[in-house]
Amino acid sequence: MSEQRKPLSIGSVEIEDDFWRQRREVNREKTIEYQYQQLRESGTLENFRRASEGESGGHNGMWFQDSDAYKWLEAASYVLATRDDPELRERVEEVIELVGAAQEEDGYLNTYFALEEPEKRWTNLNMMHELYCAGHLIEAAVAHHRATGETSLLAVATDLADHIDRTFEDDVDGAPGHQEIELALMELADVTDEERYRDLAQYFVDIRGHNDRLAWEFANIEEIAGYDPDDDEGGIAGQAVNVFLEDGEYDGSYAQAHAPLREQETVEGHSVRAMYYFAGATDVAVETGDDDLLQHLDLLWRNMTEKRMYVTGGIGSQHVGERFTTDYDLPNDTAYAETCAAIGSIFWNQRLFEETGESKYVDLIERQLYNATLVGVSLDGTEFFYDNVLESDGSHDREGWFECACCPPNIARLIASLERYLYAVDDDGLYVNQYVSGTATPTIDGTTATVTQTTDFPWEGTVELDVETPEEAEFAVRLRVPEWCTDVSVSVNGTSVAVDADEDYVTLDRVWDDDRITAEFEMDVQVLEAHPEVEADSGRVALQRGPLVYCVEGVDNDRPLHQYAIDPETEFDVTYREDLLDGVATLDATATVPAKDGWDGELYRSADETDETTAPITAVPYYAWNNRGPNRMQVWIREA
Amino acid sequence: MSEQRKPLSIGSVEIEDDFWRQRREVNREKTIEYQYQQLRESGTLENFRRASEGESGGHNGMWFQDSDAYKWLEAASYVLATRDDPELRERVEEVIELVGAAQEEDGYLNTYFALEEPEKRWTNLNMMHELYCAGHLIEAAVAHHRATGETSLLAVATDLADHIDRTFEDDVDGAPGHQEIELALMELADVTDEERYRDLAQYFVDIRGHNDRLAWEFANIEEIAGYDPDDDEGGIAGQAVNVFLEDGEYDGSYAQAHAPLREQETVEGHSVRAMYYFAGATDVAVETGDDDLLQHLDLLWRNMTEKRMYVTGGIGSQHVGERFTTDYDLPNDTAYAETCAAIGSIFWNQRLFEETGESKYVDLIERQLYNATLVGVSLDGTEFFYDNVLESDGSHDREGWFECACCPPNIARLIASLERYLYAVDDDGLYVNQYVSGTATPTIDGTTATVTQTTDFPWEGTVELDVETPEEAEFAVRLRVPEWCTDVSVSVNGTSVAVDADEDYVTLDRVWDDDRITAEFEMDVQVLEAHPEVEADSGRVALQRGPLVYCVEGVDNDRPLHQYAIDPETEFDVTYREDLLDGVATLDATATVPAKDGWDGELYRSADETDETTAPITAVPYYAWNNRGPNRMQVWIREA
Repeated sequence: MSEQRKPLSIGSVEIEDDFWRQRREVNREKTIEYQYQQLRESGTLENFRRASEGESGGHNGMWFQDSDAYKWLEAASYVLATRDDPELRERVEEVIELVGAAQEEDGYLNTYFALEEPEKRWTNLNMMHELYCAGHLIEAAVAHHRATGETSLLAVATDLADHIDRTFEDDVDGAPGHQEIELALMELADVTDEERYRDLAQYFVDIRGHNDRLAWEFANIEEIAGYDPDDDEGGIAGQAVNVFLEDGEYDGSYAQAHAPLREQETVEGHSVRAMYYFAGATDVAVETGDDDLLQHLDLLWRNMTEKRMYVTGGIGSQHVGERFTTDYDLPNDTAYAETCAAIGSIFWNQRLFEETGESKYVDLIERQLYNATLVGVSLDGTEFFYDNVLESDGSHDREGWFECACCPPNIARLIASLERYLYAVDDDGLYVNQYVSGTATPTIDGTTATVTQTTDFPWEGTVELDVETPEEAEFAVRLRVPEWCTDVSVSVNGTSVAVDADEDYVTLDRVWDDDRITAEFEMDVQVLEAHPEVEADSGRVALQRGPLVYCVEGVDNDRPLHQYAIDPETEFDVTYREDLLDGVATLDATATVPAKDGWDGELYRSADETDETTAPITAVPYYAWNNRGPNRMQVWIREA
Repeated sequence: MSEQRKPLSIGSVEIEDDFWRQRREVNREKTIEYQYQQLRESGTLENFRRASEGESGGHNGMWFQDSDAYKWLEAASYVLATRDDPELRERVEEVIELVGAAQEEDGYLNTYFALEEPEKRWTNLNMMHELYCAGHLIEAAVAHHRATGETSLLAVATDLADHIDRTFEDDVDGAPGHQEIELALMELADVTDEERYRDLAQYFVDIRGHNDRLAWEFANIEEIAGYDPDDDEGGIAGQAVNVFLEDGEYDGSYAQAHAPLREQETVEGHSVRAMYYFAGATDVAVETGDDDLLQHLDLLWRNMTEKRMYVTGGIGSQHVGERFTTDYDLPNDTAYAETCAAIGSIFWNQRLFEETGESKYVDLIERQLYNATLVGVSLDGTEFFYDNVLESDGSHDREGWFECACCPPNIARLIASLERYLYAVDDDGLYVNQYVSGTATPTIDGTTATVTQTTDFPWEGTVELDVETPEEAEFAVRLRVPEWCTDVSVSVNGTSVAVDADEDYVTLDRVWDDDRITAEFEMDVQVLEAHPEVEADSGRVALQRGPLVYCVEGVDNDRPLHQYAIDPETEFDVTYREDLLDGVATLDATATVPAKDGWDGELYRSADETDETTAPITAVPYYAWNNRGPNRMQVWIREA
């Protein structure tokens, strides 16, 4: 792809970070291992084996379950890109073999149709997710190829992509019910340099909202394996049916098919679909030089970030339809904020940054990474949130797996590919986008530098960067000034550089050789308020320090959480506690609480009798909540 | 019954009150008329006709639909007690004739069983509501007899009561699934002086929670006419099934059958059932001199009023089970606060007052009458709330009728019998319990006085009472000092009397002849707060003036309601507006609201940038809301 900025490849970045090392070790040793076992136990791998052996019937799980295996392959491939892990490599090869064996003569590959309804291929694009599964296969294949140089899975992916290309040229016309193929085909084009894949991606982006076949059809929903009309809460089919039934006549907005993309003025519908769509559309817009489309995507971005996003970066306000609703409708206790949607947004924002170089997209990646995404997995790596509320009465709890298990492998692949989001290069120099300790070896204008970053982010705002080049070389090093940072100071080799915290990036354009950059990003505790139109946050404040949004949990606080009120002027003690929640900085302060005495059996009384007192309050990072059992929780606390 | 205090009969009180005359005229001319048409259209009267003609099958509506006719008869009888209305009298007689004709040889009377399952009489006390219907027939008969002196309906009721007495003596053992028969039998005993009915009432009160047959049985629920398992939201059967399914093993608390009454420490379960039960149990406790039971009922009363009641007097916190939940669980937007439950509480509290003379019970009657009950009917008398939320996003709207139409005729009978709640007498004198203009003719120790009350309650706190006696007579006149009143002054014939607002009653014990009492009950606007444990009201205040709880409605206020915040010290302008909502006093003040500008596309920002401004806010009485179309509404407003 021809973006202006390219992220460093996974192999060019080594992460040696206290905070992320833990999360990535857990991801590698627990989550990816655990998910492989789930692929076995859920029958997902068995589906491939049976399809390859020409069996019929008995498909296990959801009809798009193949994608679980593909996302696992993608995550495992990212791990293999940075580590020699023979056992994991063997497993990856075993799964690739199973997948390849299930591919049909003509390149088609989908175990649900192979086992259940071979004659119905490509007859229900809206519900049956053949293109969604194909997209995840392609992403896995690209990741595997980049990680290992091998083409075993890439060959399967190109055969399938070629089959799709032929099919949509000759026989079928329409867009998928769940976007994913668009961005995947753009990745495949990038690896193979095949223009046809870009054209096909563009076709899928452009036809959506134009084609009559996109009208949602549920005619054969009850024939779909895995859909039990009496137990439809967890399933996508059930969700879709609920959306359909609730709204009567379905208008297509659930899948962003209510209008052509260029005519959509607000982010609508199923949030994960929207993010994958916009990511793919950004790729296409960049590739075709379609500035109008890019500007239109930024308009949608602004609608999302200015009116339809939780402070955590979570998106999607309601369970029914897992979707965006209306401007400023952001209920906390019934928030959906699906983990996959935050991850999809990171994919989209990375593309927007690569094209524009604007830090606002990277700021959002940081917010969604540390909050809306990381909360989706338990500290031990084996339990997951699908939806991420910002307030809980104690009934919200992570689960080991889901009938529709999209989120767990999605987190796994994101955490395993964190390297891609830290640095980028363009012709002029280096972007340091995220502050994570480790070593990067970017090549800028022919010079490969070694950049060693040392920081205690997200707990401390100090960042040291040692820049070494084989010989003197002139290029720019751009340090992102996070949106939450109100004061920044930077020095090079001990000499202060004039900087302005309002800048998006501090740009150090000089000749480098063996130099040390030291940056101090002030990490105040920020007491945030929401826009007055947000009813759910009215009269409330949220706490943020650095990139981390905080919350109060019942286990840390004696009073019912609703009784605490915080003055925006409150001073907070920031204490790093190694023994707590794998090590977190807590925020401790004195809050206002109602006096308990003087009520004498009254339930209501004159408010001028109000007697207030104070009580200590402790907040922990939002991502770490619900790791000490079910627990009351609030992000938004009453303002005193 | 042998209570210490007796309410004046309906015929001894003539209401000539600006506020209540409107409500009672609408009740008489619109509501009772409209409900008669509903009895025809819903097939309720047709059920009696068909049963009387020996037809089989085709019962219309809910299996307890007979009770709608009985409650209508009761309401209409109260009207006939004070007015000569030949047309209404004819209708009443026509309905009584239909009812009587449907009674079977042995006294049994229930059109559902007559038409559908004659062989299943008395086989499912929990679900089938035969005793509930019988109770309402008895209440109607007592009202009709007292109003007209006739015995046409009373004879039907005594025949049915005798049948029940025989049945429960010989064949059947158990308590009804829905209480009502208990208080009705006590009324019947009062009119007929038949000790057997009291004993039977006591049996039903006492056996509940003791008998194995009270375990909820849903075995034949699907055989019940009117129960459609695919459309169970409105129906009681559906509700009951939902309760059952939600909790798995049903523990009986839904119908207060989880323990014997004397072992229940909290008010539990379906609120209407609880109120009817406690009313009947109070009658029985009084009659049997069971002070322990009376004290236990007061313990339950304290749990209800101190921990489980809305500021409006509404009770029942959740839709599922229409029930009490846990202490301080009082959500506003999902409140149930069923109209019937408030009415049932008035029945119960009247009995507690009659026995104890304590004003706290009358205070609660006032609160529930002006707020939780009156809100249940539209100003035009033809639309009804079943559940009464304290906060609405605009989607809550009164309806013309309900599949389970318990509330509309319940309001009609309460409003038509308002006379009973205004005054009471004991051997020493008169209680003036409610301030309503009109004339009462109480007989105290042999002297019949004429007491003429003149007041503009609930808008103004001045009350004049002219007490005339045929000759000089010494007795006490006790004026209730409402709980909301912080300052009261009283004079007799222009001479001040020393009084204390903390007193429950101002007692004027003197010789009366032709004297004028003038009382001033100060009606400040009260800004109330809820107990700190009530999460839903945390950081919020409610407005009350006199007996009226106020609310803000979207139609009167420019901003979204959540943006207004009120300082407890705020001064309110009280303005009576004749043209608004059939005439109401509005509360107008200046509230704090967030400034709209300075946001520049942000969704979240530092709270220390908070810029506040002011805006006018207007509150209207809660009972009058939703009379200008669907509308956002809040009782609890943020505290500034």
